[in-house]
Amino acid sequence: MNKLAIMDIGSNSIKMILVDYRRDKSFRIIDELKETVRLGEGMHKNSYLKEDRIQKALQTLTLFKNLCDAVEVDEIIAVATAAVREAANQQKFLDRVYKQTGLEIRVLAGKEEAYYDYKGVVNSFDLDSGLIMDVGGGSVELVLMEDRMVKKSVSLPFGALTITEKFELYDENNRDKDIKKHLHQEFSKLEWLKNLKNIPLIGVGGTIRNIAKIWQRKNNYSLEILHYYNLNAENVNSVYKKVSKKSIEERKEIPGLSSKRADIFIGASGLVNYLMDFTGIENLIISGKGIREGLVYDFLLNDKLPVADVLDYSIKNLLHNFDLNEKHAARVNELNKNIFYQLESEFSFAFDEFPDRISRIIKTAALLHDVGTNINYYDHHEHSFYVILNADLYGLTHRELLLAAYISASHRHNKYSLHKYNLNRKSFKDIISRKGNDKELIRKSGIILEISESLDLNRKGLVQRVEVESKVDHILFKVYSSYDLRLEIEDAMEAADGFESLFGKELKFKLLDV
Amino acid sequence: MNKLAIMDIGSNSIKMILVDYRRDKSFRIIDELKETVRLGEGMHKNSYLKEDRIQKALQTLTLFKNLCDAVEVDEIIAVATAAVREAANQQKFLDRVYKQTGLEIRVLAGKEEAYYDYKGVVNSFDLDSGLIMDVGGGSVELVLMEDRMVKKSVSLPFGALTITEKFELYDENNRDKDIKKHLHQEFSKLEWLKNLKNIPLIGVGGTIRNIAKIWQRKNNYSLEILHYYNLNAENVNSVYKKVSKKSIEERKEIPGLSSKRADIFIGASGLVNYLMDFTGIENLIISGKGIREGLVYDFLLNDKLPVADVLDYSIKNLLHNFDLNEKHAARVNELNKNIFYQLESEFSFAFDEFPDRISRIIKTAALLHDVGTNINYYDHHEHSFYVILNADLYGLTHRELLLAAYISASHRHNKYSLHKYNLNRKSFKDIISRKGNDKELIRKSGIILEISESLDLNRKGLVQRVEVESKVDHILFKVYSSYDLRLEIEDAMEAADGFESLFGKELKFKLLDV
Repeated sequence: MNKLAIMDIGSNSIKMILVDYRRDKSFRIIDELKETVRLGEGMHKNSYLKEDRIQKALQTLTLFKNLCDAVEVDEIIAVATAAVREAANQQKFLDRVYKQTGLEIRVLAGKEEAYYDYKGVVNSFDLDSGLIMDVGGGSVELVLMEDRMVKKSVSLPFGALTITEKFELYDENNRDKDIKKHLHQEFSKLEWLKNLKNIPLIGVGGTIRNIAKIWQRKNNYSLEILHYYNLNAENVNSVYKKVSKKSIEERKEIPGLSSKRADIFIGASGLVNYLMDFTGIENLIISGKGIREGLVYDFLLNDKLPVADVLDYSIKNLLHNFDLNEKHAARVNELNKNIFYQLESEFSFAFDEFPDRISRIIKTAALLHDVGTNINYYDHHEHSFYVILNADLYGLTHRELLLAAYISASHRHNKYSLHKYNLNRKSFKDIISRKGNDKELIRKSGIILEISESLDLNRKGLVQRVEVESKVDHILFKVYSSYDLRLEIEDAMEAADGFESLFGKELKFKLLDV
Repeated sequence: MNKLAIMDIGSNSIKMILVDYRRDKSFRIIDELKETVRLGEGMHKNSYLKEDRIQKALQTLTLFKNLCDAVEVDEIIAVATAAVREAANQQKFLDRVYKQTGLEIRVLAGKEEAYYDYKGVVNSFDLDSGLIMDVGGGSVELVLMEDRMVKKSVSLPFGALTITEKFELYDENNRDKDIKKHLHQEFSKLEWLKNLKNIPLIGVGGTIRNIAKIWQRKNNYSLEILHYYNLNAENVNSVYKKVSKKSIEERKEIPGLSSKRADIFIGASGLVNYLMDFTGIENLIISGKGIREGLVYDFLLNDKLPVADVLDYSIKNLLHNFDLNEKHAARVNELNKNIFYQLESEFSFAFDEFPDRISRIIKTAALLHDVGTNINYYDHHEHSFYVILNADLYGLTHRELLLAAYISASHRHNKYSLHKYNLNRKSFKDIISRKGNDKELIRKSGIILEISESLDLNRKGLVQRVEVESKVDHILFKVYSSYDLRLEIEDAMEAADGFESLFGKELKFKLLDV
């Protein structure tokens, strides 16, 4: 296990994340520090970093560097963005940092900043295309992603703070029309921003996450997850209109809005609102990952290509971090997939008619069915539910994530009493249904997963293949193996009552020699 | 990391747990297997293990042994209890097992069985004294523990199944008086069972856990934890009376009662009820740990003495399993404890008047404040809440555990909005109060923990000591260090608003050279 530190010197704050990583490129964030240094303060006057802000930055970077030494970090990547980039006294600042701390700061050009945003996004979403937007205080990065590659990118020289100052938005917003006009003018300078209607806007950074948080709170959204949360243009507009009507003191009381951001939030949400308005983009997807994660991926993944499958990558990450039996997980996944698709006709709906990507859901549930054992072996199916929902899994919508968590939790219920995460008890009914296809998918997939795990009871992968035959009154599982698997089958038969009540047919096994 | 397998060949089932352990004696259970072999079936007729049951046992042990090979277990400990112990064909059985699997089974004498029950219990409770009871099908183990050592022990030659058969309790119970008379007679043979009024009964095994589960469900108990759950004699009696009135089919419908145990549950609960009645013991404490854990501790801990402090041991276990920065945890704990006790006069109650052991609560909260980072760094305080409640922590009552979890979750709230685990949202109000001293303890300790963590921001232990002085309008933290800790103090000052609203006094720091 090695340690990597990423420092990110912005106009408003200096942040550091500490990351444990392994040779196999799995990693976990183990610490984060943030100091509100305001290095960009007053720069609009003369483009100079102010002495007292420099002092504060030096103090902060010294602390961060000490911490890196204390925990024995192997590699430090330190970057600076807008404030240092624009500073007339940039070199002097960098020299002083180096002299005092030994840190070599890399000043990112606007396009590089946009590139690392893209790197953070592309490796934590399964989306092929999108317009990535990172709203900062003094700049906005935009990246047009097509086929998971950068098609166009730009760093605009204005941001939430600039707009707020220009239109005096600290208190109320009486200049909405001017803002709209101004932003439309600015955006129209970029030819490639036109005709993006059919791709989503992917929002990076605290400001955009705040828009989503406000919307989630307003609607009592039942999952407290922002990554991959969706809002449409109307929702964003409604948040912008809402904050526009309020004074700064009133804004501080809005549930979900960080009081530290309340001052620049009209400008910030205005930027997002009018970009959607200008481009005609209908859908905003929130990214919890941005430039710092982009730097982590850039460091870990040698080639410049994005991760091929972000779901597989993040599942592998979790399995490594939790030190689980990956071979067993992989075998259960293979058996499960195999059996599941052979039973498609026993479901009341066709898998491709289900509104979500079933293959990703059942893969996640199967590979991570034991992930909860790290918390406590006993009731580990329930802990798997919690971990699947809360660990950083990428490339699943909230609905898909929740369905996977429920299926995983169902792999070990006693006679279907599943009381803790029972659909009737814990309510996620704004996201999944307590009945119909959702319930059927959870219950039937859960029992298939239970059977699949039983067939690898020996942890040796002794099953060669399973053929499933649907008969009128029973379903026959023909298990091919050159070993005596009577106990595996007996274990699988524990699911018989549940199976019969769900599928309306008896469960039968036949052990066949290969 | 090494692997240990414990196999336990009982009258009803054969079980195996797989345990990862380290040289430092920390461990985690990674798998459990259970086969209902019924090796003791029919033994009351001729004391012989039946051939078909032996076959089943051989098949099961072969599977278990294969699994041990597959996951490369370093050490196997296999024991047999009542059925094999009493069998006339014991040696032949053992020989066949050895020949087929290579496993050397150790047949435990009744007193040895009781001893491992004790080992499991003493190392997972902070109790000095108690009467330990393990109810099996054909035997009951009793251990009188005094000063954490075995004072007396016995294995009684009757159990839940015996009583059920003897009094024909499969359906209803019409012979309550006979049972009482019989059991009182049996118990009175043991002189040392008299006069135990003032110690608790500590119940081991699935049967006794079932009594607790039924009672928890009936009362909608909000925590789904059995270990260290308390019932009084009246509660136990009420469960016994309730099941006594019901037929077997009706019993299967009782929430909390495993349908597999429904047949012998009148006998089982009768045993517990009449032991409490006979001894006058008022309090039953449920143990989630028994013989198998006893064997793990016996293997891991070389000396025969119990763990000195089960809370410290289980916290260390968790920190190791989660691969956390233990030095940082220890330093935050020291700072936190120190500050906390200096602020006692700022609480509206004296610490020793609080109904729980405050020192254990705040130690747990402080040492485990970062434990949730293993699930996800972001919102890790909330994950710490979940992990503290669900990991195996020993030596805390449920109230203490819940208070520790709340305090830990409070170490990183943004401006005290603590919305997820807010006392007003998630309800554990049957266990802790939403107001008064409980709330005060959680909130004030939470902010003290937040300050303590800030003071080790550098992760280097640069603070030599902290002296806290309570003034009329402010509380002064005098931080002694030979280093420049301005940033640490600035970070701690993030808690200033919250501190003031909780303590009614301003928060001030002074950095002093040592």
